[in-house]
Amino acid sequence: MSDTLDRLADILETRKNAAPDSSYVASLYHKGLNKILEKVGEESVETILAAKDAAISGDCNDLIYETADLWFHSLVMLAALGQHPQAVLDELDRRFGLSGHAEKAARSQS
Amino acid sequence: MSDTLDRLADILETRKNAAPDSSYVASLYHKGLNKILEKVGEESVETILAAKDAAISGDCNDLIYETADLWFHSLVMLAALGQHPQAVLDELDRRFGLSGHAEKAARSQS
Amino acid sequence: MSDTLDRLADILETRKNAAPDSSYVASLYHKGLNKILEKVGEESVETILAAKDAAISGDCNDLIYETADLWFHSLVMLAALGQHPQAVLDELDRRFGLSGHAEKAARSQS
Amino acid sequence: MSDTLDRLADILETRKNAAPDSSYVASLYHKGLNKILEKVGEESVETILAAKDAAISGDCNDLIYETADLWFHSLVMLAALGQHPQAVLDELDRRFGLSGHAEKAARSQS
Repeated sequence: MSDTLDRLADILETRKNAAPDSSYVASLYHKGLNKILEKVGEESVETILAAKDAAISGDCNDLIYETADLWFHSLVMLAALGQHPQAVLDELDRRFGLSGHAEKAARSQS
Repeated sequence: MSDTLDRLADILETRKNAAPDSSYVASLYHKGLNKILEKVGEESVETILAAKDAAISGDCNDLIYETADLWFHSLVMLAALGQHPQAVLDELDRRFGLSGHAEKAARSQS
Repeated sequence: MSDTLDRLADILETRKNAAPDSSYVASLYHKGLNKILEKVGEESVETILAAKDAAISGDCNDLIYETADLWFHSLVMLAALGQHPQAVLDELDRRFGLSGHAEKAARSQS
Repeated sequence: MSDTLDRLADILETRKNAAPDSSYVASLYHKGLNKILEKVGEESVETILAAKDAAISGDCNDLIYETADLWFHSLVMLAALGQHPQAVLDELDRRFGLSGHAEKAARSQS
């Protein structure tokens, strides 16, 4: 797929040392964890509403936009708590079978 | 990073045609969009509670676990509405500057 | 207890015909159901965060304030869909035994 | 209106000392604050979904049922933190003008 999440994690790390008024993310860090978690909650509700509307209209543009907002703010939450999104992907790999590397190794043996 | 989301999207697509009782995901599809969206909401609240607890205890294991649940159920939601997670990553790329391909091209010109 | 919810329902009914810029509630009606439901979701998350903080600090002022916000926006939601809070209280009465009137009648017979 | 919330608060107080397996509420108290807050979050999402469906179908039965669930679990949350719903109603009275008693006094003077 892409390394979007990886590059986003780098950007979010960089902005930790930035002045609060230098960017949206810097201002979120400055406001603290509750504000970041409020945003995770808000974006999850907006995603849910967009999904209901998409199921009726067939137009998924808002759904994609709101899901991007939800994932983005969950990345900010992880960064604020010193966590990298790779840990989440590793957990998903663990649940759903082979990791990419393990899969490649397994294939080469078969 | 990894192609975890890509491989998960493939798995979720495959399970659309499976019998409702053959897997957790197949049963979720069968219960319908509201049930899937309830799970997105539940997991977002569990993620928020885990983040509050992690900020106090310093232990982020639950936070990673719950964030994986949140991302997973948002992938099920996207699949149920015929959307691929790449559309969400493309939206994030669009917001946060160059995509990987564009970045490589830009670098080779400089 | 009080007739607070009853009087609030009257106020919310009155503001349905008000100009969008005449009050906060009138502006919410004007923005439509999704905006009202986003507020219900936001206030529920803020209530949850306030409860977590209250459990540590022992100070419940924010919790009371946020719960008032949550109940208030759920009243706006009910009003926007033509429902009176009494219907919710009747449902709660139905679940948890005798209504006030029935209870009084039952007592007078014993 | 009714004293439903008042009587519910009494019931919730009584069940604090009950055995965990004696009732749903007693089991919720026993599981702890996070479990209660998860329920507040879940019921808020179910209320939002029911409102979206009611706006289309015109049938508000589920909406009333889910709002009752949301209010009920917020009452359990308040009880778990030692708070009475009257404090929430007082806050709503404070925001929206005269309390019932003050209103009556004001009317008798006019």
